[in-house]
Amino acid sequence: MSTNSSSSFPAPSNVHGAAYPRINPDLSVTFRIEAPTATTLQVQPGHQPEGAVSGLGAGPYDMLHDDAGVWTVTTPPAVPGFHYYWLLVDGVPANDPASQTYFGYGKQTSAVDVPEPGVDFYEIKDVPHGNVRLHWYHSATTGAWRRFFVYAPPGYDTATETRYPVLYLQHGGGEDETGWANQGKANFILDNLLAAGQIVPMLVVMESGFAVRPGEQPMRPTAGTGGRPSAFEEVMIRELIPMVDATYRTIADREHRAMAGLSMGSLQTLQITLSHLDTFSSIGAFSVPPENGFDPQNTAFDVRTAYGGVFADAATFNQQVRLFFLTAGTAEERFVKGIHHFACMLDQIGVTCETYDSPGTAHDWQTWRRSLQEFAPRLFRA
Amino acid sequence: MSTNSSSSFPAPSNVHGAAYPRINPDLSVTFRIEAPTATTLQVQPGHQPEGAVSGLGAGPYDMLHDDAGVWTVTTPPAVPGFHYYWLLVDGVPANDPASQTYFGYGKQTSAVDVPEPGVDFYEIKDVPHGNVRLHWYHSATTGAWRRFFVYAPPGYDTATETRYPVLYLQHGGGEDETGWANQGKANFILDNLLAAGQIVPMLVVMESGFAVRPGEQPMRPTAGTGGRPSAFEEVMIRELIPMVDATYRTIADREHRAMAGLSMGSLQTLQITLSHLDTFSSIGAFSVPPENGFDPQNTAFDVRTAYGGVFADAATFNQQVRLFFLTAGTAEERFVKGIHHFACMLDQIGVTCETYDSPGTAHDWQTWRRSLQEFAPRLFRA
Repeated sequence: MSTNSSSSFPAPSNVHGAAYPRINPDLSVTFRIEAPTATTLQVQPGHQPEGAVSGLGAGPYDMLHDDAGVWTVTTPPAVPGFHYYWLLVDGVPANDPASQTYFGYGKQTSAVDVPEPGVDFYEIKDVPHGNVRLHWYHSATTGAWRRFFVYAPPGYDTATETRYPVLYLQHGGGEDETGWANQGKANFILDNLLAAGQIVPMLVVMESGFAVRPGEQPMRPTAGTGGRPSAFEEVMIRELIPMVDATYRTIADREHRAMAGLSMGSLQTLQITLSHLDTFSSIGAFSVPPENGFDPQNTAFDVRTAYGGVFADAATFNQQVRLFFLTAGTAEERFVKGIHHFACMLDQIGVTCETYDSPGTAHDWQTWRRSLQEFAPRLFRA
Repeated sequence: MSTNSSSSFPAPSNVHGAAYPRINPDLSVTFRIEAPTATTLQVQPGHQPEGAVSGLGAGPYDMLHDDAGVWTVTTPPAVPGFHYYWLLVDGVPANDPASQTYFGYGKQTSAVDVPEPGVDFYEIKDVPHGNVRLHWYHSATTGAWRRFFVYAPPGYDTATETRYPVLYLQHGGGEDETGWANQGKANFILDNLLAAGQIVPMLVVMESGFAVRPGEQPMRPTAGTGGRPSAFEEVMIRELIPMVDATYRTIADREHRAMAGLSMGSLQTLQITLSHLDTFSSIGAFSVPPENGFDPQNTAFDVRTAYGGVFADAATFNQQVRLFFLTAGTAEERFVKGIHHFACMLDQIGVTCETYDSPGTAHDWQTWRRSLQEFAPRLFRA
């Protein structure tokens, strides 16, 4: 097969040693599955919200089989980045055994990470590496065990007199606390930025945005659970932050604490930070869902009264909030229009914010990797 | 459905919020899948080596569907423990979307963890918890990026003058460095043992047993790659151990260094420790594959010459090796016979070893959880 030439290569999201899915020089992707008993086999790129389309295309792509029951298909050239997909085996969704799995759509899902030519800011490189630590705790708020990850920057264990600022970084709906490291490569992004002298060393805390009180119906982390903060605000303010400040050498004040999140996590970030400006000084909202009032069609949304009226006194807000950062991908049109509409409304009343548009990307991790890459260097500057 | 009564409960291995697979009071397991377009649907318990049978039974179990295309089946009562399985959708292996995935059989695989009534040594409890840290490094031996996990016991970050012994703990064929924490619950086992005062606080390092030199064919981590140590011995001795000793507050001598592994990892453990007794003083081999010479039928295996003749001088071996510990499950008959045959051969020439038989369990994680529970308290005693 021509796609087996030396210029194509296995996707970095594959399990170790798997030759397919394979990225071709034109960024098309060839999938290959052995399934002699299947009647039909298709590749379905992950669904996107609000009319956006996966960088892998809309699909589904029908696979064709040879006499041995090996099915293949090659997609059109993909937009670089991380794209969820699944197989449809006689119409039944199934993971590709050759892909690692990533928590998305409320379950473990296959994905293909299409490298962006010439771009390596989220690749692992020969620079000092931090590590990612998994912690468990019993939450008094939810009455259940929870876990969170902490990225500790290189040098954390040896610089025992140094204290660090903290970024709280939240995943999206349908995902969980593993997303920012596994899909987002947040740790490599920060390792690389730090090695280049572009950020202040910081701790990053990644929790699950799903939390219900005892006796409440469990939230299933499927996409579209929206901004329901449920018990997460209480978990974060009353439990997580005090625990992180007690466990790590943090600088435990609002000037050295930031929060950012993507999609559902952006709604949680806005909800929590804007009602706790005593706790946070920097805010990142990546791909805010437009239904949150940022849609230009939504004339009922009043920026002066939104979020408890926190924007009404622009001078005070600008003095308190060191960074208010909104991002979206240009291929998630309703989202990018929404954040710019919101930014304009803020501008009209004198509130300072910054925006970043990720070129050509949709509601996906390439948008959020780039958002973090743009956001982190703006944090915790003197 | 009767299985939906309050006395059945979702398997702890499910994704958050998934009601099925469900454990029934008699330890049978009910699976439930929505798949209106499937023609046949089956549950296939993970295959076992050497004639053993999964604690979930041999299967496959045919599922039956209702008019809405919802398929269900209930297995016979299962042996408690962690059992891999997959669905067969019209004969094609597929993960169960309701299960978390665990790296086994060289891919991400579904599993059902059937709790053992009255047994909680591997459950998360209200005791101080260590954390599990993920590290990346570039290996000079393999010319590739590798990663390893380190369990740091509770108190490690605050007891900054304390140094710790280290256990190197290896997974089996078809699995990877995530196995001992994800499937094995090694961190909870050690948290609980420490809280009960039954072990010395120790660091645990979990690496991938797969390593090839540059230009060599990649090892695909499928089951049955056997004991080929490949480049792993070199990775471990020349890179991993020095790096751990430089990064963590270890007691960097042979008296405070142990290695254990399961199945393929047991072969690697024997291979590496027995040729490096200058580096290790304690050895754990869990479920050693019988083809390694431990089969009673294998009359060619000579314990006096095996492993470079390390056992020939029993007095010296007994003086050097503080713990030589062999385990297997009674339901993996060839393995358990093999370790006892090996123990007898050692006994005949005066070499001291200890054995542990896990009652009723096969070549699975309940055997290895119990093996660690028995092994760890014997380590690093004065």
